Order: sequence, then C-alpha cells, then structure tokens
Amino acid sequence: MSANVETIRHSASHVMAEAVLRLRPGSKVAIGPAIDDGFYYDFQLTEPIREEDFPAIEKEMRKIIASGAKFERREVSKADAMKLFADEPFKLELIEGLEEGTISLYEQDGFVDLCRGPHVESTREIRPDAFKLRSVAGAYWRGDEKRPMLTRLYAYCFASKAELEAHLKMLEEAEKRDNRRLGKELDLFSTHEEAGAGLVYWHPKGGRFRVALENWWRDEHYANGYEILFTPHIGKSWLWETSGHLGFYKESMYSSMKIDEDDYYLKPMNCPFHIMIYNSNAHSYRDLPLRWAELGTVYRYERSGTLHGLMRVRGFTQDDAHIICTPAQIGDEIAEVLRFSLSMHRTLGFKDIKAYLATRPAGDGAVGAPEMWDTALESLRKAVEKEGLAYEMDEGGGAFYGPKIDIKVKDAIGREWQLTTIQFDFNEPERFDMTYVDSDGQKKRPYMVHRALLGSIERFFGVYLEHTAGAFPLWLSPEHAVVVPVAPTFDEYAKAVEGKLRAAGLRAKADLSDSRMNAKIRDAQNQKVPYVLVVGGREAEEGTVAVRVRGGEQLPPMKVEAFVERAKAKLAEKALDL
Amino acid sequence: MSANVETIRHSASHVMAEAVLRLRPGSKVAIGPAIDDGFYYDFQLTEPIREEDFPAIEKEMRKIIASGAKFERREVSKADAMKLFADEPFKLELIEGLEEGTISLYEQDGFVDLCRGPHVESTREIRPDAFKLRSVAGAYWRGDEKRPMLTRLYAYCFASKAELEAHLKMLEEAEKRDNRRLGKELDLFSTHEEAGAGLVYWHPKGGRFRVALENWWRDEHYANGYEILFTPHIGKSWLWETSGHLGFYKESMYSSMKIDEDDYYLKPMNCPFHIMIYNSNAHSYRDLPLRWAELGTVYRYERSGTLHGLMRVRGFTQDDAHIICTPAQIGDEIAEVLRFSLSMHRTLGFKDIKAYLATRPAGDGAVGAPEMWDTALESLRKAVEKEGLAYEMDEGGGAFYGPKIDIKVKDAIGREWQLTTIQFDFNEPERFDMTYVDSDGQKKRPYMVHRALLGSIERFFGVYLEHTAGAFPLWLSPEHAVVVPVAPTFDEYAKAVEGKLRAAGLRAKADLSDSRMNAKIRDAQNQKVPYVLVVGGREAEEGTVAVRVRGGEQLPPMKVEAFVERAKAKLAEKALDL
Repeated sequence: MSANVETIRHSASHVMAEAVLRLRPGSKVAIGPAIDDGFYYDFQLTEPIREEDFPAIEKEMRKIIASGAKFERREVSKADAMKLFADEPFKLELIEGLEEGTISLYEQDGFVDLCRGPHVESTREIRPDAFKLRSVAGAYWRGDEKRPMLTRLYAYCFASKAELEAHLKMLEEAEKRDNRRLGKELDLFSTHEEAGAGLVYWHPKGGRFRVALENWWRDEHYANGYEILFTPHIGKSWLWETSGHLGFYKESMYSSMKIDEDDYYLKPMNCPFHIMIYNSNAHSYRDLPLRWAELGTVYRYERSGTLHGLMRVRGFTQDDAHIICTPAQIGDEIAEVLRFSLSMHRTLGFKDIKAYLATRPAGDGAVGAPEMWDTALESLRKAVEKEGLAYEMDEGGGAFYGPKIDIKVKDAIGREWQLTTIQFDFNEPERFDMTYVDSDGQKKRPYMVHRALLGSIERFFGVYLEHTAGAFPLWLSPEHAVVVPVAPTFDEYAKAVEGKLRAAGLRAKADLSDSRMNAKIRDAQNQKVPYVLVVGGREAEEGTVAVRVRGGEQLPPMKVEAFVERAKAKLAEKALDL
Repeated sequence: MSANVETIRHSASHVMAEAVLRLRPGSKVAIGPAIDDGFYYDFQLTEPIREEDFPAIEKEMRKIIASGAKFERREVSKADAMKLFADEPFKLELIEGLEEGTISLYEQDGFVDLCRGPHVESTREIRPDAFKLRSVAGAYWRGDEKRPMLTRLYAYCFASKAELEAHLKMLEEAEKRDNRRLGKELDLFSTHEEAGAGLVYWHPKGGRFRVALENWWRDEHYANGYEILFTPHIGKSWLWETSGHLGFYKESMYSSMKIDEDDYYLKPMNCPFHIMIYNSNAHSYRDLPLRWAELGTVYRYERSGTLHGLMRVRGFTQDDAHIICTPAQIGDEIAEVLRFSLSMHRTLGFKDIKAYLATRPAGDGAVGAPEMWDTALESLRKAVEKEGLAYEMDEGGGAFYGPKIDIKVKDAIGREWQLTTIQFDFNEPERFDMTYVDSDGQKKRPYMVHRALLGSIERFFGVYLEHTAGAFPLWLSPEHAVVVPVAPTFDEYAKAVEGKLRAAGLRAKADLSDSRMNAKIRDAQNQKVPYVLVVGGREAEEGTVAVRVRGGEQLPPMKVEAFVERAKAKLAEKALDL
C-alpha cells in the first residue's frame, strides 16, 4: 500500500487508457508515461475528446478503480506480442523496435498494455479523489511532425486528495503570479514575436528593478574581491574553435555572420573572452586568485516551442564570473563562492536553499586527471558542509569538463528554482594554454571555475516576480511611494511632499490625475507600490502624511521627514518588510 | 600674400611633385590634394623613396620655393590636355573622365599639372621652414586594390614655422597619450585581432573606470527625468525592414544570422527597440515627454583598415536616449538635452565646447514636412543660443531624416573631438506609426529625438584617456591610493591603513611586494595612481600618512582619517584636482 507516487501515476495512466477505450471504442493507444505532477496518455481517437468530456472519463476511471482489478504482469515472446497487438499500429511499431526476447505486458480488467512496469497491485491503490484530468492537446507520434498527430490527455495525480488539492491551489496561485501576466499588468517588460521570439525588452519600471539589482550586484562583487570586466558579444570562429564550443556546443549557438572573410558567432558564453584577457598578460602565483565577473549578455538557440516568458529565453544576461587560482587556493575559493552566493540569496529573502552536487560522468568523455576531479569534488563537498547546507548527490551528472554544485531555492509557493551554478572547468585552461609562474619558477596550469549566482538577470527577474507576486522589497521596487491628495485642493501639498521624497533620493510621484482619491489608491496598490501617502487638510497643516503600507496596514500619521527616515533605513538595510 | 593655408598646402604639393620628378626623372604623377595638416602626392616612381631621401626632397623643394616661380593658370581643350599629358597615364585617365569643355592647368617652373586651383601666386608664398615631409606609404590608384599600387608621400605644411612647430609638438604629445599605448601601459583594455578586430576587451582597471562612469551616467539620467531601458542586441529582419535600416543602412550592418526560418541582424542602433516598447502601450499626451535612455551596445561594420584603438571600433556602447514628445514640448526638451549635455561635459572637465548645426540636405531625399524641419532647427538654434554656446552652421549637412546638433570638445592638447549628437528623426515615427492621443482626443504623431551625450563609452574612454594622459580625476581612477611602507617592518601598518581606506569605500591597496620603496612609488606614479601614501616609523606611531599627490606635490603628514575625509570630499564633488 506504500507504492511510490510515480508507480501510482503510471498505473492511473493505464486506467485512463482503459476508460477512454470504453468511451471511444476502436480508438488506438500509443504511450502513457508518468510525469512530474501526474501522467498523460496519447491516443488516436475515433471521436475527439474535449474538456467537457473530462467528467465522463473521470467517472469511468473511478468505476475501474472501484472494481479493484489487479495489475497482472505477463511475459511473452516478441512474436506473441505482435499477434496480441495486431490491431494496435503504434504498439506494433514499438514492439518492432524492441530486441528479441521476452516482452512484458500488464493487464488490468481486460486492458492489456505493453509495459515495463512496475505498477500498483490493484486499481484500488489509486485514490479516486487524488487525480484530475487537466488538459487535452495534440502531439505528434514520436514527436515527429511528419508522423500522425495524436491526442494527448494530461492528468494530475497524487498519492492523496490533500496533495492534489495543495497542488491545484499552488497552480492557481502560480497562474496569478505568472511572470508574463505580471510583466504586462505592472508594465515591466515585453517580448515581441515579430521582432524575434525569446528576446526581452525591459520597460522603464523593469529597468528600475534591473538597475537597482545590478548596482547592488556590482557593489557586492567589488566588496567581495571581484573585478568587473566588459567583453564583446561576438567572436571569430578561431575563438570558438579554440574553446571547443564549435565542437561540443554548436547546436546551441546561432548561425554565423560573415564579416570580411571571417565567420563570427554571437557568444553563448563569456568564458573564452575572460581567458583572452587572462592570456594578454603573464601571471605570477602572486596575482592569484583572480575573481573576474561580468554581467555578460549571451545568446543561445532554444526551440521556439520551449520559449516561455522570462523563464526560457534566447538572450540573457548571466551574472557570470570566473575564478582562476592555484590548486592550493581552490578549497578556500569554492567555500568563499558558496558563502557569497548564500549571502546574496538570503538578502533577497530566500530561506529554503538546497545544493546538488554533480560528479564525473561515466565513460571516457570526461577531461581532466581523476585526481583533479577528486580535489574539485572534495572542495565542493567541504564548502557545502561548512555552510551546513542540505545537499543531494547527482552521481555522474557533471559536465565532461568538471564537477559542479547547483543551488536551488524554494519560492513563496513551494516551487524549487535553480539560481546558482558553480562549475569546474578542466577543459578550457588546457585548450587556451593558460599558465602562471609558480613560486618555484615553473609554469603551471591554474584551476578555473565558472559561476553564476543569480543565473541570469532575465530568469531571476521572472523567478523573483513569481516569488513576490510583484510585491518587491522596497530597494527593488520601481516606485517607492505614490502621494495621493484627498482632493485637488491639496495637489500643491502633494507636489511638495513628492519634492521632499525625491530630494532624499526616493522614487516617488504625486498622482495629480483627474481620477478620484480611491481610484488613485487602488491603482497604486494594484501596481504594488510599497507606500501610498494620502494627504489632505490636516496633513498639509501639520506637514505630515498618512501612510498606507502595501498589504493594507495603515501607519499612524507621521511627519514627512519621519517617513523619509523610515524609508531610507529600510532601503539601507535592504529590508524585506516595509 | 594672405593666401589661406589650404591653398598654400595645395601649391606645396605641386612643388613637391616637381622636386620628386627632378630627383626621380621619368616617374609618373597621379594626384596631390591638401589634407588636414598638410598634403600628399601619389607617384609611380622609377626608383623607391625612403625616409632617408626626405632631406634631399625637402632641399629640392626649398630651391624651387627660393626661385620665386609663378603659378600660372591656363585653360585648354580636352583634346589638347590629352596631348599635353600623353606621357602621364594617370593624368590621362583623369582627363578621360572629365566632360568636354575647357580644362584648367597650373604651371610653375616648367612643371604642369592638371588642376582646378586655386594656387598661391608665387612659390615664395610657401614658407621654406613651415613644411616637413612626414611619411611614405603605398596607396592603390583610385583606392582600388585591383589598380596599380602607387607611392604616397605625405607632408605637414602650415602658413608659418611657429604653426608647424606647434603641430609637431602636439603630435609628439599625442603619441605619448595614444590610447592604444596607454591602454597597454595602464592595463586598461585590449583588442584581439585573432578573435575579431575592432572589439574591445575591458580589463579590471578599465572596468573600474567604466563602472564609475556608468554609475554616474545612470544617476544623472534618473535625476534628470530619464528612464533606463534594456533591449536585445539582435532583431528579426521585420524590425529592420520596418525601420528602414535594411534599405538605407545595410552596408554598415553585419550580415544576417538564420534562426529557424528567419534572418536576424545584430543591432547597429537602439531606436527600433525603444519604439517597440513605445508601441506596446497606448499613450496619451499626459504621458509625454518620455525620455528613454539605454547604454546599448551596437555593432557596425567598419573596414578593417579604418579600425583604430578605442577611437574607431566595430562594437560600441552608445549612451543613447530617445525623447518622444509633443510639438509643443520640443523647444523645452531640446534646450534641456543641451543643458544636460554641457553639464556632463563640464563635470568631466571640458571647457572649450562648440556646436555644429546641420540643416536639411538639398534634393528631395529628405523626409518630413518643411515646417517640421523649420520648427526643429529653430529649437536647436534657440537651445544653443540660450546656452551661449559658440556654433557653426553646416548647411545641408543634416541626415535625410532630420536636422541635428553635434557638440565637439577640445582636449588638453587642442584637438577637437565630437562627443554629443542630438538628432531629430522624422522617419521612424512614420514608419512605425507611433501615435499619442492629444487633449482634443485626436491621434497624433509625436516628435522623436535621438541623442548620445558621450557618444560611445569606448570612444569616450579613448578620448578621455588621451585628454588626461591617463591621469583621471579621482572619481574615475581605477585605484585611488597605494600605501607604500618604507621597509618591510611597516607592512603591518600599511595593511592597517589599507583596511581603513577600504572600509571607507576607497579603492586602495598596500604594496607589500619585494620591491624597494622607491620602485613601489615609481610604479604607482607610472600607473597614475592619484595618491601614494608612504608610511614608516613616525607614521605608524602617530597614525598618520605622508601623502604624495600625483604630479609631485607632497602634502604635510596627516592622520589617516583626515586623508580619508579629504579623498571622500574630492570624490563626492567629482573634483578635477586632487
């Protein structure tokens, strides 16, 4: 009775297939795997299914569940399997692709499916109140647009009703926070298919967020011993051949541009440029470690179907850095990167943070001596342990050029997002012949580590927008305060308050439009402005403001100067509350 | 006797041609125009000329000058001219390209040249001590690499000896300040032919300059009513067809990249992207004026032979902005842009500033109603006059899409550099159908103005590097102070001083290397570090520093705290002195 949720989901997909065949007899079945929050099944239907048909399918599924039918495993020869599925062309094609030998089938309640399993023992192990049909979509057989278009039915499915309900509630909340929706409502950014999909245009208010974020990022990097570089967005093929990107990364790069007689490529990564700077001078061990950062905008090809708001784009600005150091320094450097990363995430208000360590991939594609992998992995593990961070191992999950840590944070509605990546590179220092002269006078190869703390500015903006539902902390808010006069008589005082706030460096405006007071307040609240300062006769007389804090709280009337002090203090400490 | 200098230069080029023919009889002559600081002449020589031949040529020229030969003008028919130059193939080709009719020749001292003139009356008007042969180079006939390679002889030439000497001195000074040389000596930036010519890599110290400059630029823009945008570096052909760039600007654009089925281009300008943002919302007259700025990196094709350090590059970051406003607002907006521009140049220490107004080009290629051109030009002229700025008119020198002001500053050695451009655009608002709803409820077309104040960050860095010879004002200096202990005994105190300076936000380092004190001081001075703080026994005991200011001055010993206050005050006021 304690089947894992993936087994339950997969079993439920068989139940759904059976239900669909009952309601659409003669339909053909294709495949039906478990996915992240449920399952799907692909059909070639005799008659279409629409959303209004979902209740009937769910009802039929509940009947099958209630029947308590057993999932029974059978093994047959390939030839027998082909006879059994003679009438199911998609299954036949799958069977044809299998090697000779026994093939496993699962049967429940008369419905037989080609399947590796495992499954629950009986349909009763699927909770009748813990699944829900979600959507119907077209999907090409085997993802190939030249093959038949099938109908894919998606469903949510969990081990318990409570989990399903929590998930649906989270989705409803996520829908409200969708970065594309908030981006429009708050006028933060746009994308323009006609001018190029997956490319982000930052509007004035998005720009204010980004400038505040990047200013802080630069200050923190300088304060933590980094230097900031600026490098070009394009490089000649020589650079990408040397780095190896044209060999192992070309499908993610844009096609080349011809300039004079040379091929140039938009950069998908900043590293070769930083290495060019490193190699333009000789280096001694005394110069190391170097910590070189850049807010470098890179371009990578993603299929247009996968593009999604700020979360998946084709052009993005990595908050990149490269650490170049001696083997003796690597332990301290990694510990320092991790500490720095966590301190930034905590300033931003993330509390639930987890690390994922990826080790040397199997096979002999990996570069770098085994002892370098060991040293590197050891430094990653020690750093995580020093910070007392929860972590999981991803054995064999490293890139061919080195092990890494990814750091994921949980957002306000429980979703996990990867922000930081800290990645060793044993490949490029070799390819570019990077060296330093050690204290013994010998030329040696330095260690190089790539790292991005926020990941990319665009994606981080999307994550943070969804995490905060657009209610940014004061220091990242495009506007700090809106001053609303209770009537036009007080426009002048509102303007004077605006002037005082601006003189103090606050991003403030007086709303002197023709709207009524309540509409102005509502508008500012909808725009998630942290403070609405309402001013009327009493305030004008006493030099005060009535402060409504975002979220509803009303503060006792205070002098304008007292409000300015309060806001400046919150800004200075990058407070998460108002 | 008061012939203008261009006439003198052109006459001197004939004299040089005569001298060369005397020394290399049988050589053929091509063309010999006046240029900025002298002249050149192209020859097909019977025997090469090298730099060591210059004195002989100069001597021969002085003989011709001393002869006092007259420059005599003659007019002949095309047929006669062809007979006369039967032995000069390059002249013949030039004559063939001329229309029928009379052709003017100039003769001095038996040397006849095909020439429009004018010339001085006699060779005596050329000062024998006011010219100097400069260099010899290859040059293709008519700039065409398929035609013969000729020898080009360059010379400096002025109206007086004093002017020549001042010019040579300026060149010597310019050579020392060459941005490529200082960029290397001060480790500020590099370019890498093998990875792509004309692309700038900013090293850590260059990055510090750029971050300080851009931080200031952003602060000033926000304080002056601008918003800051961020837009992509690439756009689909639709965007560039709509903007018109693929029609009138294609040769300056890089070739396209194919992404899926579409052609994308690197942006040579930011404007279409800002317009996309404008057009993504409806606008009322109440929203205007909009001032939208971006530090937007653009890429433009330049022939590789014209690339030059930071001064002429292929990728550069414009400090761009677009002003979008109603016709009624245009006067105030232009005045405001000019005021803002001048205030920035003055903060940077430029005192000698001049404007150049360019008006509607002749012909019917210009777009926009004549009254729009008049309004626009009037607003430009009024703005210049309001600021009391010296200006010159460049009649017909505007782009086809609108009039403009260019602003040039003189650097420390008297060279003029264009920084600001303020440019009307009557083209793109039409092409993108930009509108706003006016107070009368009607949709109307806004005015749009492009402007860049520093021009580009790369070129400005080059200009400023040469203007200051790398001795930046404190606030733009990559390093503020270096602490030098008189002996290793005081390393600890030097480190403590460094700590105090850093805690106060100063960019400081203690030089604890093995070098001797004097070498450390010299090194810091060579690196143009504003303050060198020398510390020994007395300083350690009293908590003071001995301050050597860049340029040589030594300040009386002062407490570390007093030095910090002094430096912070200079930083806060962006002082030009130390």
